[in-house]
Amino acid sequence: MSQREKALIGVIMGDPAGIGPEITIQSVLSPEILACCQPVVIGDSRVLSKAFQSCSAEGKIHILQKLSQVHPNSDTINILDTKNVDPKQMTIGKPSALGGRAVFEDIDLAVRLANSKEIRGIVAGPHNKYSVNLAGIHFAGYPPLFAKLTGSPHAFNMLVAGSFRIVGATLHIPLKEVSQTLTTDLVFATIEAAYQALRRLNIPQPRIAVTGLNPHCGEEGLFGTEEETAIGPAIARARDKGIDAAGPFPADSLFSHIQEKQDYDAYVAMYHDQSHIAIKTVSFERVAGLIIGIPLVATTVGHGSAFEIAGSGTADPTSMKEAILLAAKSSGT
Amino acid sequence: MSQREKALIGVIMGDPAGIGPEITIQSVLSPEILACCQPVVIGDSRVLSKAFQSCSAEGKIHILQKLSQVHPNSDTINILDTKNVDPKQMTIGKPSALGGRAVFEDIDLAVRLANSKEIRGIVAGPHNKYSVNLAGIHFAGYPPLFAKLTGSPHAFNMLVAGSFRIVGATLHIPLKEVSQTLTTDLVFATIEAAYQALRRLNIPQPRIAVTGLNPHCGEEGLFGTEEETAIGPAIARARDKGIDAAGPFPADSLFSHIQEKQDYDAYVAMYHDQSHIAIKTVSFERVAGLIIGIPLVATTVGHGSAFEIAGSGTADPTSMKEAILLAAKSSGT
Repeated sequence: MSQREKALIGVIMGDPAGIGPEITIQSVLSPEILACCQPVVIGDSRVLSKAFQSCSAEGKIHILQKLSQVHPNSDTINILDTKNVDPKQMTIGKPSALGGRAVFEDIDLAVRLANSKEIRGIVAGPHNKYSVNLAGIHFAGYPPLFAKLTGSPHAFNMLVAGSFRIVGATLHIPLKEVSQTLTTDLVFATIEAAYQALRRLNIPQPRIAVTGLNPHCGEEGLFGTEEETAIGPAIARARDKGIDAAGPFPADSLFSHIQEKQDYDAYVAMYHDQSHIAIKTVSFERVAGLIIGIPLVATTVGHGSAFEIAGSGTADPTSMKEAILLAAKSSGT
Repeated sequence: MSQREKALIGVIMGDPAGIGPEITIQSVLSPEILACCQPVVIGDSRVLSKAFQSCSAEGKIHILQKLSQVHPNSDTINILDTKNVDPKQMTIGKPSALGGRAVFEDIDLAVRLANSKEIRGIVAGPHNKYSVNLAGIHFAGYPPLFAKLTGSPHAFNMLVAGSFRIVGATLHIPLKEVSQTLTTDLVFATIEAAYQALRRLNIPQPRIAVTGLNPHCGEEGLFGTEEETAIGPAIARARDKGIDAAGPFPADSLFSHIQEKQDYDAYVAMYHDQSHIAIKTVSFERVAGLIIGIPLVATTVGHGSAFEIAGSGTADPTSMKEAILLAAKSSGT
């Protein structure tokens, strides 16, 4: 594959005061990544240049005003300059409206470039919810933001670590609201979004396992009934539509020996900790997020902006690299 | 340690129609177990003799009418005969009132022997809830049964796999009832029970981590408040009483690298899947349960009665062996 044929993947650094700029700079020249896509960082070039220095990166920075100026060289970090954060007005390690607004603007630009097919995928670095809300923008994380920007009814965050993929039907809501939020429509939408995402990852006949909500799937109604009223019917609807979905299965034993067995291409869980505990216990550093249910390819880093170590050059870029690779794979490159 | 000095540990086979009789027979002559305790199987000798044959066990069976008749030899399976299941009236692989009643009677006898200090600990093999309920005995698992038989207000099931120990403040209830069930008193009782259990395991200053209930511990009230209203106050009360309890911590990232890091001697979680997913994902076969919050030493096997493979001699006795070892260690031998 020549450099020119490779898909452009837009990489957002996330909050400029966090570790995002460093792990972005440390990721985009990875040979594994350059072998399958051409990353373009979308963000303020001054912040990124400073991060380049603070983590003693090798290579050179090339600042673009438009995407046609990309230099597809293995030693060149291409930055589409958004000129929206003056580093002098920002304190590393502190949330700020300036940084929060930049996160929103960078994502907004990336979505427009993806909609117009100028880039094939978006990778979102670590945000800080407090910063974005300081900027007066209501923000509950990337999935709802991508849903809003693409006009999609739902977006779900599928966590991916190698061939272990898991997505929750619900995410950032109180545990006590999970039961009332789960409907057949919502669980079915999650299964369908997982199915479409797996197809995009070149898995022609995806196998999907769905968890129950209650201990032992409710043990025939003894400890809850959502398996019968919402989850089971959603699985039946998916199967009617030709999706190879199975379950509901008790979530506690489903993930044993997950790394050896390859029974399912993805798991659909019901809520945050059910989906997150297993994958983060098995493979913490590698976990990246694939935003599914939207018409664009978008991935996210699997961790936060880690203000406490920002600027020190010590952050681990593993998850950011995985997020870029995941975007490249999902974009069909 | 001479055989005579070793603590007697009473081992219950669980449902006689499941895999319990086989894994009991396959466990009790393990040299690792005999090195630290003297197991005595409490159950029907006819069922156990049949299992001895079906799994081609080595050694010999010695049937006792009272505990003073124990033969402390390394090739002898000691069985205190409860004479309560005629194998001719039972079908292997099928739940029955006969089998369910035997589970209850065997446990009841074991509790009486433990109360009178004739045995130092109890190990409970895999039951089948349906069988016990068929016998007209209301049964929701071993923890509430042990609580009832010992007159304790609470009993909790701490899952143990090596040095990874985790216990939920709630267990077999619908997920939607978890929030309303969690009180400061209940979470504190769980922490205190964990503390006492760890002390019994010869850990003089146990370190205990407590999870939150909601995603990211509710992210300062954005996704729930139980961390502030119930869990935080319970941790504070524990600390006031000199217990080294920390948290609440977000449950999703708490168990990464659990096998390398040894930060805490036990984890207190809030509900079934939160406590079970991590440990069963990390170490499925070895998981055994330690019933805590009661004045006796009691452990349970970490799996069910697996009717589908009962009688075939193929069941894996690993968890049963771990349960016996755990009882021996907890009894101070």
